[in-house]
Amino acid sequence: MTTQTLLREPPLRPEPDLNAEMAKIGRRAREAATELALASAETKIAALNGAAAAVRADAAEILAANARDLAEADEQGVSSALRDRLALDPKRIEAIAAGLEAIAAIPDPVGRVLAEWTRPNGLRIQRVAVPLGVIGIIYESRPNVTADAGGLALKSGNAAILRGGSESYHSSRALVAALAEGLSSAGLPEAAIQLVPTRDRAAVGMMLAMSGVIDIIVPRGGASLIERVQRESRIPVIAHLEGLCHTYVDAAADLEKARKIVVNAKMRRVSICGATETLLVDRRVVKSHLPFILADLRAGGCELRGDPEVLAIDPSSRPATEADWRTEYLDAILSVHVVDGVTGAIEHIARFGSHHTDAIITEDDSTAERFLREVDSAIVLVNASTQFADGGEFGMGAEIGISTQRLPPRGPVGAEQLTTYKYLVRGTGQVRP
Amino acid sequence: MTTQTLLREPPLRPEPDLNAEMAKIGRRAREAATELALASAETKIAALNGAAAAVRADAAEILAANARDLAEADEQGVSSALRDRLALDPKRIEAIAAGLEAIAAIPDPVGRVLAEWTRPNGLRIQRVAVPLGVIGIIYESRPNVTADAGGLALKSGNAAILRGGSESYHSSRALVAALAEGLSSAGLPEAAIQLVPTRDRAAVGMMLAMSGVIDIIVPRGGASLIERVQRESRIPVIAHLEGLCHTYVDAAADLEKARKIVVNAKMRRVSICGATETLLVDRRVVKSHLPFILADLRAGGCELRGDPEVLAIDPSSRPATEADWRTEYLDAILSVHVVDGVTGAIEHIARFGSHHTDAIITEDDSTAERFLREVDSAIVLVNASTQFADGGEFGMGAEIGISTQRLPPRGPVGAEQLTTYKYLVRGTGQVRP
Repeated sequence: MTTQTLLREPPLRPEPDLNAEMAKIGRRAREAATELALASAETKIAALNGAAAAVRADAAEILAANARDLAEADEQGVSSALRDRLALDPKRIEAIAAGLEAIAAIPDPVGRVLAEWTRPNGLRIQRVAVPLGVIGIIYESRPNVTADAGGLALKSGNAAILRGGSESYHSSRALVAALAEGLSSAGLPEAAIQLVPTRDRAAVGMMLAMSGVIDIIVPRGGASLIERVQRESRIPVIAHLEGLCHTYVDAAADLEKARKIVVNAKMRRVSICGATETLLVDRRVVKSHLPFILADLRAGGCELRGDPEVLAIDPSSRPATEADWRTEYLDAILSVHVVDGVTGAIEHIARFGSHHTDAIITEDDSTAERFLREVDSAIVLVNASTQFADGGEFGMGAEIGISTQRLPPRGPVGAEQLTTYKYLVRGTGQVRP
Repeated sequence: MTTQTLLREPPLRPEPDLNAEMAKIGRRAREAATELALASAETKIAALNGAAAAVRADAAEILAANARDLAEADEQGVSSALRDRLALDPKRIEAIAAGLEAIAAIPDPVGRVLAEWTRPNGLRIQRVAVPLGVIGIIYESRPNVTADAGGLALKSGNAAILRGGSESYHSSRALVAALAEGLSSAGLPEAAIQLVPTRDRAAVGMMLAMSGVIDIIVPRGGASLIERVQRESRIPVIAHLEGLCHTYVDAAADLEKARKIVVNAKMRRVSICGATETLLVDRRVVKSHLPFILADLRAGGCELRGDPEVLAIDPSSRPATEADWRTEYLDAILSVHVVDGVTGAIEHIARFGSHHTDAIITEDDSTAERFLREVDSAIVLVNASTQFADGGEFGMGAEIGISTQRLPPRGPVGAEQLTTYKYLVRGTGQVRP
């Protein structure tokens, strides 16, 4: 299939035979998954680098497709934030290509020997990483997710069925065409990365019903999407829920570190899941530390909402209610709460947090270790910004999201986290007594 | 709570306030889970050994409770197989106590550093094993599962809510009382292992609705239970589906090994999930190997169902239909199919298997490695019996089941598999650029 055929005009109305089309996509994905699972590391690297080259070579087509998406978005009068997430330019295209090359460069996650041991009867047992199979990824507006998700699925030996946001439909088609060129150039099936060929919302429901065809669903979007997936689907989910992240300034915090980290944790980018939403401050340093931190935040344009003790030293803060402790603002707003030391911080986080990412600022090692041990979140940091909650920052090359569920994968989901394992047992004629 | 209070007569009719009772159990389990997660390895070992001692000390009470279950079973006229699964005797009581001590002796699964690395910016990242939280375990008649499941949950730092089979209700209450004595003797909360205090079936539905309280449901039972759990519950599941296991005798198989392994794989115990249900034979050794293997099986009392090529050399076999390739007999019945070498075996297993456990008998290493690589099952063996599919045989101390799902945990589920992980990140003031 060439870029030309992939880019042909999509139907404006729902496919009358969408069910048949989805079934065909499922069959092709399963066949491709069998082939991908056995592909060598070198072949997958060639496909990813080939895809990066195709993204660069097809930049004009991709930008033209993106222009169609933007024109339709403008007609519908979307918000400037959404329009920005949607828009591609030569710099963003280059970042997409470089992202695929970064995924190519990480160690192959398939075939890793995770554990091995020999039993007294001589059986040699290995636990070895293998791909998950067919991954269904449902996401929203950013076109670059198409390349990241497709690239990570490929690296981990999985086939992917992508259902991108309808706003980025043309852009995603053009990017999937480039991924297909990469797969094809390495001798891998183009069906390893398929885009659902319609903007019809019914396709999401059909994907959720493809138990036995799709092995894992990865919803990347708002809480309502994830709730729908968990409610409707019997397929296991890698869920990314909200990030109600805390930074706790301990009595033993270094003031300069605290100022620098808190401002970064809240304000570097306010719309990401790793942004701090609630600042907790040890009562013992409310007077010595908090005024400086609040002044920095306010200077950066942050709205502050405090409990009565905060208001007492900072009357320009708005009063916080309990609802504030439960709110993921994703905006330049911070709730501030005074607590009784690390015990109070741990209790507050257990009660109001979302088990995503939480940080402590302290120079006291035993307090730090207690916080690390007792805070039950996917990521717990000492003396660092919560905005490091990111697969790229963890060295995973890229991520498909941050899992807030308890069963693995938990935390940033990169290529390694898109594998499962099997046991290989080598005997010499053993039978069970 | 003493053994006496736990053993008091259960209500014969549904508790009018079962909802309130289940909510209370949930609250107590969550509190216990917080405490268990932070318990030291030594404390958990003391609790498990204390429970083993209590099982031995309370043997008379446990046998008396079991006698009540057996009397009720006899009134209902249950099958002799079910009665046998239900019955305890001093030897089985000792095995339960020894099982708890075996769980005590395995390495502590909590706190293991699964990976660690340092980023160029100096952040030190560790992935560390932590408990799952509250595990809901729904199982059928064997009373020993109560001790195994409770013991494994305790070892892995989780709280357990157990819902055993109604036939073993009195036995399970007595065993949970002994587990509570062990917990209490080590200073751990008795609520760490709770038995649902009713035989009312409504309790299962309530457990499935306890999203946010129960973190993981482990159904141990027939396909209908697992289907119900997957359909009704939004809580993640560790599912143990059927074991449609194959043994493939390759052209390069050693005949003596093949005879010994096939008979063991089928006949050692026909009712376990790791029992072989279909024998695949390479066409090239149908004449040289198959007659001996079939004669051994028949001598052991196994009914044989063969395809036309099998019937041609063994006319006493019954004809097999395609339904046989899809049937988990769990009985002294074996389907036998001739295939074209390892390629044919891999294709048959992919089409008809249940991704549980499959074995090859061959002296050809490259054929063995191809089978290990291409057969997509939780456990793949070379020159060994499929009946080794068992957590105990893998060295895990005990198992709560064998997971046939794709996401981890896959394969035997022991204490290590009842953990998840979190990331600990230690910085020195880093902020994200």
